[in-house]
Amino acid sequence: MANYQAVIAAIKKLQIRGAPLIGIAAAFSIALEALQGRPRNQLLVIAEELRAARPTAVNLMFCVDRMKSAISASANVDAGKLLILALKIFDEDQELCRQIALRGESLIQDGEDVLTHCNTGGLATAGVGTALGIIKQAHDSGKHIKVWVDETRPLLQGGRLTTWELAKYGIPHTLITDSMAASLMKSKRVQKVLVGADRIAINGDFANKIGTYNLAVLCHHHQIPLIVAAPYTTIDFELKDGSGIEIENRNPAEVRSSWAPPTVEVLNPAFDVTPAELTSYWVFDRAVLNRSAVREGAIESLKF
Amino acid sequence: MANYQAVIAAIKKLQIRGAPLIGIAAAFSIALEALQGRPRNQLLVIAEELRAARPTAVNLMFCVDRMKSAISASANVDAGKLLILALKIFDEDQELCRQIALRGESLIQDGEDVLTHCNTGGLATAGVGTALGIIKQAHDSGKHIKVWVDETRPLLQGGRLTTWELAKYGIPHTLITDSMAASLMKSKRVQKVLVGADRIAINGDFANKIGTYNLAVLCHHHQIPLIVAAPYTTIDFELKDGSGIEIENRNPAEVRSSWAPPTVEVLNPAFDVTPAELTSYWVFDRAVLNRSAVREGAIESLKF
Repeated sequence: MANYQAVIAAIKKLQIRGAPLIGIAAAFSIALEALQGRPRNQLLVIAEELRAARPTAVNLMFCVDRMKSAISASANVDAGKLLILALKIFDEDQELCRQIALRGESLIQDGEDVLTHCNTGGLATAGVGTALGIIKQAHDSGKHIKVWVDETRPLLQGGRLTTWELAKYGIPHTLITDSMAASLMKSKRVQKVLVGADRIAINGDFANKIGTYNLAVLCHHHQIPLIVAAPYTTIDFELKDGSGIEIENRNPAEVRSSWAPPTVEVLNPAFDVTPAELTSYWVFDRAVLNRSAVREGAIESLKF
Repeated sequence: MANYQAVIAAIKKLQIRGAPLIGIAAAFSIALEALQGRPRNQLLVIAEELRAARPTAVNLMFCVDRMKSAISASANVDAGKLLILALKIFDEDQELCRQIALRGESLIQDGEDVLTHCNTGGLATAGVGTALGIIKQAHDSGKHIKVWVDETRPLLQGGRLTTWELAKYGIPHTLITDSMAASLMKSKRVQKVLVGADRIAINGDFANKIGTYNLAVLCHHHQIPLIVAAPYTTIDFELKDGSGIEIENRNPAEVRSSWAPPTVEVLNPAFDVTPAELTSYWVFDRAVLNRSAVREGAIESLKF
């Protein structure tokens, strides 16, 4: 199996996951194929295959398109230049994470309990993460916070990965099943909810891990701010609103796991779409936007 | 281990589960201890221990109290009489289920897709079940319905038991993780939500499997009727509202399962409380009540 095929398989199996990280992995994969001497037309085909590995996260398309532009820019393949571009994308993502964490941290107050879904930390990005980066920054700046971690069925990224990261950072946290958030909110034990995103439309609607829309409805009902954090590379500037986001349906076996009848019919959408009107703050690397700013078109104005 | 101790252990491990069924199991356990010659004072102590096996479900207390009254009614233990009473409680529950199914069935229309949580069928009652009994009755009466089955973390009663029952009955169904219900509702693929209850206050608030309150908020937001079905034995006529319901916190290992860090802090409330104002219909064996009837005190009037 060629390197890029292994990367595609790893993305599909979620061995490489997190919207920013899969884009970075794809960029490095293209650079490595170039270093192995692939001709220009083959590299462009490989880039297309990598680009299609996951349909929902736009960061992947964004990173691959940057690599494709570099390939197309010269008649001969300059593998060194492509590697430098991949490294640049990697470095940029670290810096984007840092900016998100610094800007978002002010939204969390000392003493608050926050809830997060899925994994949005160092295992999902090149840097400190998006939503989890903000949480870490608040903790590092001395705020006494506690984190409720949704286990995030079906693939349990919260239970497996976010708990591991929070323990590593020494941030107090408690694991819950996804269905417990509602009663915690009712008893006022959640002050903020922070999530990442896989694609953000210019009206502020965004796709993220399945269960995020559920949290958004709960936040709305209990008047708890919902904060979405992502680098600008997650914005799809072609997308007017969330209705155009393709939702990946994944293998039924992920839901059946070891306990359900092996033939039971399953629905397994990996993502859902949260409308802007249920979202309180959008934390980007370059700005924190509230709902009225987003309503007035602030996301589109982030375009270079 | 004495028989009643085995029954208590089975209730605690949820090997015997479902609010109606644990009450019946406790009644039979007391009768069996009487048949083995236990004296009156020992039987009353055993009854108390069984009564405390699960704190949330009121049916258990109700059944044990009926057995205790029979024990206290005569100076000498009449084991045969106690067995007959346990059998009567069993038969009654079957009939209660039948009445719930017949009365509730009219709330489901031909062609509707309904969603259910946890397991409320023949594995949770002596009869056809409560919420699942209504679903079966609607199917048996020729209505073309489809069931979305919440897997119901942490103990997966939906994924393990409800899927099995629905397959046995030939009722079309699709398994989902608990966090998927919200996006199904948004895309108008859920017309009704049916759940059981472990305890119902006279104002209509009710305790049920964790995740039910989450569904109630989602139903409210998407204007989908939420139907709770239970025998009158689930009503706690001493309880003015849901704030007085004790919520059992269970073993953290149920949430950690095999994937989360073995030392991670966990919260594992087995139940949550759904307020009457988020509930559309209460289906009892003797009446279907809507929200305005419940507001006017209709539940209290169900007392003998």
